[in-house]
Amino acid sequence: MTIRIILAGLFAALAWSPIHAQEFSADPDRIEERIQALGRFGENAEGGVSRLAFSDADLAGREYIKGLMQQAGLQVRVDTAGNIIGRREGSESDLAPIMFGSHIDSVPGGGNYDGDVGVIGAIEVAQLLHERGILTKHPIEIVSFTDEEGGLTGSRGMIGKLGEGTLGVMSHSGMTIREGIARVGGDPDRLELAVRKPGDIAAFIELHIEQGAILHEEGVNIGVVQGIVGIRWWDVSIEGFANHAGTTPMNRRWDAMVSAAELTLAINRVARELPGRQVATVGKIEALPGAPNVIPGEVIMSLEIRDLEADKMQQVFELIRVEAERIADEKSTPIRFAEIDVASPPAPTDQQMRRIIASAAEDLGMSYKLMPSGAGHDAQDIASIAPAGMIFVPSVDGISHSPQEYTTAIDMANGASVLLKTVLAIDNGALE
Amino acid sequence: MTIRIILAGLFAALAWSPIHAQEFSADPDRIEERIQALGRFGENAEGGVSRLAFSDADLAGREYIKGLMQQAGLQVRVDTAGNIIGRREGSESDLAPIMFGSHIDSVPGGGNYDGDVGVIGAIEVAQLLHERGILTKHPIEIVSFTDEEGGLTGSRGMIGKLGEGTLGVMSHSGMTIREGIARVGGDPDRLELAVRKPGDIAAFIELHIEQGAILHEEGVNIGVVQGIVGIRWWDVSIEGFANHAGTTPMNRRWDAMVSAAELTLAINRVARELPGRQVATVGKIEALPGAPNVIPGEVIMSLEIRDLEADKMQQVFELIRVEAERIADEKSTPIRFAEIDVASPPAPTDQQMRRIIASAAEDLGMSYKLMPSGAGHDAQDIASIAPAGMIFVPSVDGISHSPQEYTTAIDMANGASVLLKTVLAIDNGALE
Repeated sequence: MTIRIILAGLFAALAWSPIHAQEFSADPDRIEERIQALGRFGENAEGGVSRLAFSDADLAGREYIKGLMQQAGLQVRVDTAGNIIGRREGSESDLAPIMFGSHIDSVPGGGNYDGDVGVIGAIEVAQLLHERGILTKHPIEIVSFTDEEGGLTGSRGMIGKLGEGTLGVMSHSGMTIREGIARVGGDPDRLELAVRKPGDIAAFIELHIEQGAILHEEGVNIGVVQGIVGIRWWDVSIEGFANHAGTTPMNRRWDAMVSAAELTLAINRVARELPGRQVATVGKIEALPGAPNVIPGEVIMSLEIRDLEADKMQQVFELIRVEAERIADEKSTPIRFAEIDVASPPAPTDQQMRRIIASAAEDLGMSYKLMPSGAGHDAQDIASIAPAGMIFVPSVDGISHSPQEYTTAIDMANGASVLLKTVLAIDNGALE
Repeated sequence: MTIRIILAGLFAALAWSPIHAQEFSADPDRIEERIQALGRFGENAEGGVSRLAFSDADLAGREYIKGLMQQAGLQVRVDTAGNIIGRREGSESDLAPIMFGSHIDSVPGGGNYDGDVGVIGAIEVAQLLHERGILTKHPIEIVSFTDEEGGLTGSRGMIGKLGEGTLGVMSHSGMTIREGIARVGGDPDRLELAVRKPGDIAAFIELHIEQGAILHEEGVNIGVVQGIVGIRWWDVSIEGFANHAGTTPMNRRWDAMVSAAELTLAINRVARELPGRQVATVGKIEALPGAPNVIPGEVIMSLEIRDLEADKMQQVFELIRVEAERIADEKSTPIRFAEIDVASPPAPTDQQMRRIIASAAEDLGMSYKLMPSGAGHDAQDIASIAPAGMIFVPSVDGISHSPQEYTTAIDMANGASVLLKTVLAIDNGALE
């Protein structure tokens, strides 16, 4: 075993991962085959997938998943929020279920691993328990959440946070979320039936691809997720004075675009120079009136800040605001920040869950690393009602939301094996 | 007179201008009244005007202008390019006409002075000659060009450069230029009849507002235009790597927006630091895919460079390209420049014309300044077939293409008086 671990370290950078000598472990070939089969629903010319929630491809993919759940001996139902739930009873009827899963909807032009690995991996665990005839004490529930990419719709429903306003939002499929939920077999008028309260779920675990390059580049097998970073968004407006780009000399300009450029660099600098893993991004920008021959009188740009700690996010914002005030003063171009109400607070995972997942990886001879999740996940919702944990597996080159998204079969199987071991540990009282 | 000139210098910053003691000079009240009357065609709620070429407002404004021309004793016709031409014969039938004028169409949400001052001022000159019974040797032709704001349509027609491609272009009015020309009484199928050849026009003079703040801020009465700056446009593309803004650490990003910001500052710096009056502008920018939570994988932005000398424009571009290469290398984000085929070369005015206009201003006790025109004008087209000159009058605060555009009645009259004196000087052989 020692040799294997050393080899794991040596070869990890080549994406080699240890196949552990467990009495039973996840089957990379079966997982790979199912990922490929699922990928055919909504496949696109680039080798990726566009399986938007509520679309025909999503419906077909959901049927495929239900079939796999049934093969794994699960009782399948769709809750009123449209979540597919495959349940297997435990030996002790008074225990709350251990739930695990993810989602199968994709972004437009997405890949075959984001979400899919967590659902196929969870089914793999159920299948293994079924094949080996292992009866857990807790019931287990494998979940495929509705419309994760459109705003964690299914998990929001499960925690009772899916309001009328959200139901009316138009999803990428061209349907409102209300229409979409009805289309996939949910009941948007009886969402209360989908709601789980604290105590209703013993534990929740989500296996997912990292979507970043850290595990891949460092050659680490498993990411033990410390939490899902909080997200804050602002619309930043920079006010200049629109004027004729031909008749206005360089020294008589109040060019909003020049100030916006300085601010963009300042945002990048602040996020880079502070110690920590915070990120800040300008992803969207518009100069107004937006003609090549007019000095921009206004620029509107987006600012996004993410971090695992709310205080850190605020600190980053304050530093950016100081820079903005300096630029506004120096260039006489007022800068305003309007926060947009899409903030999600940081969602730390359960500390015991982190320990259990780390032990599972260690026992299986895998290297692991504590890390934040920079992306949002259904686990952040379920974390508000149950101890939640997340298991990351490497994304090759860190590419995600792209047809180039890729995770090796071995890495997917590693994640499923850690998931299985984690579920069994929790079933055996590791959380208590 | 000396005292007046000294006072002119003292009070010029307050937009006070000298009323010169000429035997006859332009009437500020009449000009102001006509500018206001013309401004009612297409007037908007902001106190400005939207008199797009070919629109109903343009048609009504054109009829008003034709009426004024007739009152000034001119024979009015519309050439096949839609230009309104008011002609008065001279005493020597073999001489080519002296032509002067501008345009009355406006940009959307424009002001009452851009173009209008040149047409009303030219009619004022004709009116004064008419009222005083002064017969020039040369014929005079007052012109109101078609659709200046849409691309110098009328003057391009006059020099034989209005091609089939341009005729098919959709104008702001919602009509093609071909349809528009027909609507205002031109004949797009017989444009050759509108063409003037070298020798057909003895001289061309355009009175216009500066559209910049130099004359106003320096308290100078008259701008003697050295030429119309050349314009070159590029689409600049900066290539990064689109990635998840949450999962991609700051040190693993190829953020096209950050490189675009650096380049924007470099463009501004190059244009500022070189000696001269060159300008360079980024007026338009788009980050792709353009979501707050995605690191931009590409940025497309506009670059415009203007100067009175082609070599200088090329020098500015080369310096910008050097900066771009440095940024591209440092950040591993390739930068490409694609020049757009809308370039107009610098169009210097006739040197003798500059001298004649400067003398006219001087004789009238007005201060003047040699300056480039940063904006395009019909004069740049006519300069290719005739000696051309331009007279600028101050724009208050340099504002143009805006309802806030403003030039005082005194300044307009000053310009018309200089125009009158220039026309008479040319008629008396000053150009020969």
